[in-house]
Amino acid sequence: MIPGPTPVPENVLNCMSKHPIGHRSGDFQELVEKTTKQLKWLHQTNGEVLTITGSGTAAMEAGIINTLSKGDEVICGDNGKFGERWVKVSKAYGLNVKVIKADWGQPLDPNQFKKLLEEDINKNIKAVIMTHSETSTGVINDLQAINHEVKNHGKAIMIADCVTSLGACNIPMDEWGIDVIASGSQKGYMIPPGLSFVAMSKKAWDANAVSNLPKFYLDLKLYLKTVNKNSNPFTPAINLYFALEESLTMMQKEGLNNIFARHARHRNATQAGMKAMGFNLFAKEGFGSPAITAVQPEDIDAESIRKSIKNDYDILLAGGQDHLKGKIFRIGHLGFVNDRDIISVVSALESTLDKMGKLKSPVGQGIAKTISVLNNES
Amino acid sequence: MIPGPTPVPENVLNCMSKHPIGHRSGDFQELVEKTTKQLKWLHQTNGEVLTITGSGTAAMEAGIINTLSKGDEVICGDNGKFGERWVKVSKAYGLNVKVIKADWGQPLDPNQFKKLLEEDINKNIKAVIMTHSETSTGVINDLQAINHEVKNHGKAIMIADCVTSLGACNIPMDEWGIDVIASGSQKGYMIPPGLSFVAMSKKAWDANAVSNLPKFYLDLKLYLKTVNKNSNPFTPAINLYFALEESLTMMQKEGLNNIFARHARHRNATQAGMKAMGFNLFAKEGFGSPAITAVQPEDIDAESIRKSIKNDYDILLAGGQDHLKGKIFRIGHLGFVNDRDIISVVSALESTLDKMGKLKSPVGQGIAKTISVLNNES
Repeated sequence: MIPGPTPVPENVLNCMSKHPIGHRSGDFQELVEKTTKQLKWLHQTNGEVLTITGSGTAAMEAGIINTLSKGDEVICGDNGKFGERWVKVSKAYGLNVKVIKADWGQPLDPNQFKKLLEEDINKNIKAVIMTHSETSTGVINDLQAINHEVKNHGKAIMIADCVTSLGACNIPMDEWGIDVIASGSQKGYMIPPGLSFVAMSKKAWDANAVSNLPKFYLDLKLYLKTVNKNSNPFTPAINLYFALEESLTMMQKEGLNNIFARHARHRNATQAGMKAMGFNLFAKEGFGSPAITAVQPEDIDAESIRKSIKNDYDILLAGGQDHLKGKIFRIGHLGFVNDRDIISVVSALESTLDKMGKLKSPVGQGIAKTISVLNNES
Repeated sequence: MIPGPTPVPENVLNCMSKHPIGHRSGDFQELVEKTTKQLKWLHQTNGEVLTITGSGTAAMEAGIINTLSKGDEVICGDNGKFGERWVKVSKAYGLNVKVIKADWGQPLDPNQFKKLLEEDINKNIKAVIMTHSETSTGVINDLQAINHEVKNHGKAIMIADCVTSLGACNIPMDEWGIDVIASGSQKGYMIPPGLSFVAMSKKAWDANAVSNLPKFYLDLKLYLKTVNKNSNPFTPAINLYFALEESLTMMQKEGLNNIFARHARHRNATQAGMKAMGFNLFAKEGFGSPAITAVQPEDIDAESIRKSIKNDYDILLAGGQDHLKGKIFRIGHLGFVNDRDIISVVSALESTLDKMGKLKSPVGQGIAKTISVLNNES
């Protein structure tokens, strides 16, 4: 129950052990053609979605360095570990970064973006870079509202890290006009890590035409050229393509709206259980990610809870990162997760806290709330 | 029988379908610790070997951009598709590239390196970049001799693409003093594509300290910092680590010298069979790669041979790239290849040519030579 790698269905795992086929073969071309169509469906876009062998960071870096040039002014949202990372990437490439911060656990404030973008009457700001679902804190930022300000600006493009939000909640790329979406295979995709994806709008490709940052392995022009021939510029992680085809087919069968509703329901059920057990949620009310719930226990070391639940129930929870280590634990409910997983983790937490003598409510109260949400939300 | 992805043993494939473990877990740390030791054994080095999720190109690019700075003078050897690629990468990052060329099929001439390096009395040349086994032509370049000239220069570092030579022939990294070795999982490693490796000498790390090219995902400092904690800076292709551990354990059981002898013997047996059938070898005599044999048929389209042998015997051979398309075919004998594979491909080629009415020798003469080598070389 960590926020990635997420659980992988057995039929998808079985695909991983097929013998790799040649990446210049007709069979592989068919695989690229099919998965590219499926990826467009998942991104709700008619634009190109490119597949990179690498982590989500590689995809996000590719989005940044393929649309910008040295010295370009950009705004980076930073309210967690990943927001922080995009500031680092931007600085590593000599971009002129204005950072909009929020405390960890708080969402980014769209008004701060609005202000900076409106003040930019000379249209110097080339991009807004932000994380949608901040995995480190369980906060979902208001991508739609911030993107609305970017559209009002007119010139800047929106580069969004949707690594733990894509396939968990609705992100209609074309409808909203998001320019770059980066994501990674070990999240909503339900496959093991190793592939990442960059979706690019027409406006993003226009920006690419004048971008001058050096790159080769992450040069998206090379990926565009080859995806049009149903191929890949470098030797890709072929076995992960087998898994990708299988998992995207499962997702298509479930349907986007059902997938989004399932994640919202699991988020709500998890949050309700945690609150009923007397826990504080780390993310500000109303900004809990559909992918992950961060929980802040009072007067108990979060690491001791993690250790105990792993030991007694073999359930792995994520800990807090950096200054949050020991302060929070994080429950992933992203990807191949069902109601059984949700009631398991909530009741195991209840049992664990009870054993530690730290449960603030009668045993059963947490799971009762969780079950109530599960049984009443569709 | 293509030069990558190479055949994967069944026990290695089975590892691929295990459920991914958390990349921040103790179990994964053990896996990194073990595979890092195994990688050092394979590279014959006490220095660090870093694992990247990406293709061999990503590893080679990492080696280049982590040791050099904008405007640095470098020599690139170019006698095939991959040599050509390193020239492109170097230029993409604004390096000042002197190219030493040889015709495709010919080896790079160490004397040309010697001349340029000796003329550089001000020691401006910062690196020599070259491909050891040129997959596109089946030529093995004399890495040891060229590296000898680099050592005599004293200042420049050697950055070697050993993607199809590592695990096929002897490359004692520390003994020879190679500074950077890049390789990829889908070659001698016998695992599917998706991981690549960069080994770095002390001198390469010294060069890294003053290197200023922009990077993030390929920033080897981040990999060094985390490998020392048996971890990885980004979410790696965990399932490929399972496969890596399994295949490196198989390789350790076989032993380096046995692996090298097997590849040399298969190269010799393949070459002998091809010559006895009246084929020309594309690589200059004495410079045939232990990983791949490129064959240049006379007055027959190489593509028609490939098509026929795929159709009748389900054996996939590689074709020629770029201007060599239709002119050559390439037999991969790298990684998990045994005597059965060698006699299969040679006899299937003999049968195919016979059916096409293009065999220049009596049927059986090719395979007889191949068998003779197999039975007389240990």
